[in-house]
Amino acid sequence: MVPHLTTALTGPLLALESRFLERQTDIEQWFRAQWLEHSPPFYASVDLRNAGFKLAPVDTNLFPGGFNNLNAEFLPLCVQATMTAVEKLCPEARNLLLVPENHTRNQFYLRNVARLAQILKLAGLNVRIGSLIPDLAGPTVLDLGDGHSLTLEPLIRLPGGRRIGVEGFDPCAILLNNDLSAGVPELLQNVNEQTFIPPLHAGWTTRRKSQHFDAYSEVARSFSSVMDIDPWLLDPLYDVCNDINFQERSGEECLATRVGALLARIREKYAQHGVDHEPFVIVKADAGTYGMGIMTVRDPSEVVGLNRKQRNKMAVVKEGLEVSSVLIQEGVPTFESVDGGAAEPVVYMMDRYVVGGFYRVHGERGIDENLNAPGMHFKPLAFESCCSMPDPGCAPDAAPNRFYAYGVVARLALLAASLELERGAPLDATAEALEAELRG
Amino acid sequence: MVPHLTTALTGPLLALESRFLERQTDIEQWFRAQWLEHSPPFYASVDLRNAGFKLAPVDTNLFPGGFNNLNAEFLPLCVQATMTAVEKLCPEARNLLLVPENHTRNQFYLRNVARLAQILKLAGLNVRIGSLIPDLAGPTVLDLGDGHSLTLEPLIRLPGGRRIGVEGFDPCAILLNNDLSAGVPELLQNVNEQTFIPPLHAGWTTRRKSQHFDAYSEVARSFSSVMDIDPWLLDPLYDVCNDINFQERSGEECLATRVGALLARIREKYAQHGVDHEPFVIVKADAGTYGMGIMTVRDPSEVVGLNRKQRNKMAVVKEGLEVSSVLIQEGVPTFESVDGGAAEPVVYMMDRYVVGGFYRVHGERGIDENLNAPGMHFKPLAFESCCSMPDPGCAPDAAPNRFYAYGVVARLALLAASLELERGAPLDATAEALEAELRG
Repeated sequence: MVPHLTTALTGPLLALESRFLERQTDIEQWFRAQWLEHSPPFYASVDLRNAGFKLAPVDTNLFPGGFNNLNAEFLPLCVQATMTAVEKLCPEARNLLLVPENHTRNQFYLRNVARLAQILKLAGLNVRIGSLIPDLAGPTVLDLGDGHSLTLEPLIRLPGGRRIGVEGFDPCAILLNNDLSAGVPELLQNVNEQTFIPPLHAGWTTRRKSQHFDAYSEVARSFSSVMDIDPWLLDPLYDVCNDINFQERSGEECLATRVGALLARIREKYAQHGVDHEPFVIVKADAGTYGMGIMTVRDPSEVVGLNRKQRNKMAVVKEGLEVSSVLIQEGVPTFESVDGGAAEPVVYMMDRYVVGGFYRVHGERGIDENLNAPGMHFKPLAFESCCSMPDPGCAPDAAPNRFYAYGVVARLALLAASLELERGAPLDATAEALEAELRG
Repeated sequence: MVPHLTTALTGPLLALESRFLERQTDIEQWFRAQWLEHSPPFYASVDLRNAGFKLAPVDTNLFPGGFNNLNAEFLPLCVQATMTAVEKLCPEARNLLLVPENHTRNQFYLRNVARLAQILKLAGLNVRIGSLIPDLAGPTVLDLGDGHSLTLEPLIRLPGGRRIGVEGFDPCAILLNNDLSAGVPELLQNVNEQTFIPPLHAGWTTRRKSQHFDAYSEVARSFSSVMDIDPWLLDPLYDVCNDINFQERSGEECLATRVGALLARIREKYAQHGVDHEPFVIVKADAGTYGMGIMTVRDPSEVVGLNRKQRNKMAVVKEGLEVSSVLIQEGVPTFESVDGGAAEPVVYMMDRYVVGGFYRVHGERGIDENLNAPGMHFKPLAFESCCSMPDPGCAPDAAPNRFYAYGVVARLALLAASLELERGAPLDATAEALEAELRG
């Protein structure tokens, strides 16, 4: 369990927070109207950056790990949100199969799986863990290092071949906590009778960060027009470079040109808003996760003539997925710190509800660097209060109000993910949904 | 805010709690299936009695006061549940009118109204308080005695005459926190364009406790068959006496006969379950609230030849509503105490979710007496943990597990209230609902 600690409230007061506080009722109404049109993903986590002059999402994870990092006091919110989500997605479900990532040596990740299983069980589901590890011989008990253990079972085709599950367990729904970076395994293909949550096309085989941020820009514009603010305050500028091959050194010039153009656009925005800060961009794989293939760039020359080590770092992401397309994203410095370490908030949502969050704190990284990279030992610091209880009687940067602002921006990213998944749905699924709608 | 205090866990270990713990997933699935068929009321509170050998609801309030007594830490659960409920009942609602009781001198009650208004606002509604007080001249600010105030405004017909609201505020929905003991005021009649939550027929003008407990017995039987337990463990026996007039002393014999018969049935159940306790019944008005018109009866002779004071006490309930029908309910002794005072749990629900609860503690009342009567200064003691996080790793009577059991039984009463409201719906409303269903 994460202890109660003070939060990282050292950033300058954010005018946005005051605006959100004044317009809280309008904001909730706006979201309610959006959710009448769009279905939120079952769960998501959003990495935010609070620059003081700007508060923006930089990554939206549709297979969130880290539920074990949330304040245990807000678990009831997770359970309640799960009940709501299950009721909509698969109300008659009794059995649910949770499919985790394959890394069995990461106890932190395994504790996340255990926490998720606990939440699902409390919401009234029989839960078993179905693993995609190819050589898993049978049920395997893993020690979580906290006095508890977790049992993985090999995921199999059930007799008949049309359904999947684990030995003696036929699930109605399959909750993916595996981002499918290695592609959709054959075991999960052509399974039509069971519900995948989220749908398979949410995986990194098909997902593109640029599509997410396309949708996010649209959402941010719409929201900002209601709030009467510049959408840039919530939205990182970005561009995409589609034909890059780091190993073969092709596409470097194109990347450098686009980096230069984006830096110029950021400089212009900084001037417009009176921000005295040196712009930077983050170059990262358009598909993929785990903070691999990420670099901080302050000048276009930095992406030309990379050395072997840099090229290797950028060329592949998790599961050896090759990088051929990169997102060039406005870098948002983090002006929050905990005990001298740079900190970025990560907000967790289930269904449309913010259920908690934590700070990713890293003592040895700068305010313009990625805090979520392999081998990084960030320290999680659970939010001390929830994100749905703004208090107009307190200062805009008091914990409940700052967390509320985080929850608002994270929900904008959640809404963007809904749009992204709608648009990315395979044609037959779209046709089915349309047909269902016509049937009423 | 209610301080964290220890809970009243002095009762004997309840076999029920162990059963609920073992079958937690089944229980949640059972409820989920029920809520596919029935709509929960927007909110409700349920008074429970834990006798050690039996855990049963004794009163279900569809216009709950006392939200101010809940543990403030669980307010986010209320906000989240309210969001879910609003989405179903009136997703496009922006403006909501909260109609409270008329007692402006009860600061505890006013704090409940303020707390409710806060929850609704956080869920994204513009809230104003529309009062039915006949002589309220204009907006009236009431001091809550806790540094806050509450503004009541006269409830009016809006221009056009078909809608109600307060000056300059046209609500989409009207949340009643007034139990309509005095009948449905003319101001609230023939309002067809706005949604009443709960519906007007939930008021004491039409509601009967006996109908609630009819529905409850049905629910308890169905649930008990799944749990494989005797429904009596959850369900207080009862009977009704319909033609009583305490002032005219008519019907006393009939009442005495039925009291005697019920005491005999309880004695039989006690023998069957090996309970060594003297049975008693509670006689209370079939319509009405606030613990008026309630007596504890251990022998039929006690209801014959009542003296003037006793007759006056039983003849009328709140708002002078005359008692012509009484519920005779098996008395369930409370075996919980806090600091030597008898204590009974009160569980709060919004939509289908348990959102908190508190103990009603009364130092001067016995374990077989009503703890909620006018002039009674009970001490509220907020539940220290929520009701949705049972922990199989703890003893069945550990706080999270006991509160879970309370939440289960309270939800059975909530489901009974749903059935009761469905069945009590005026014919035209039923026809409309049917039509809407056919339309899809």
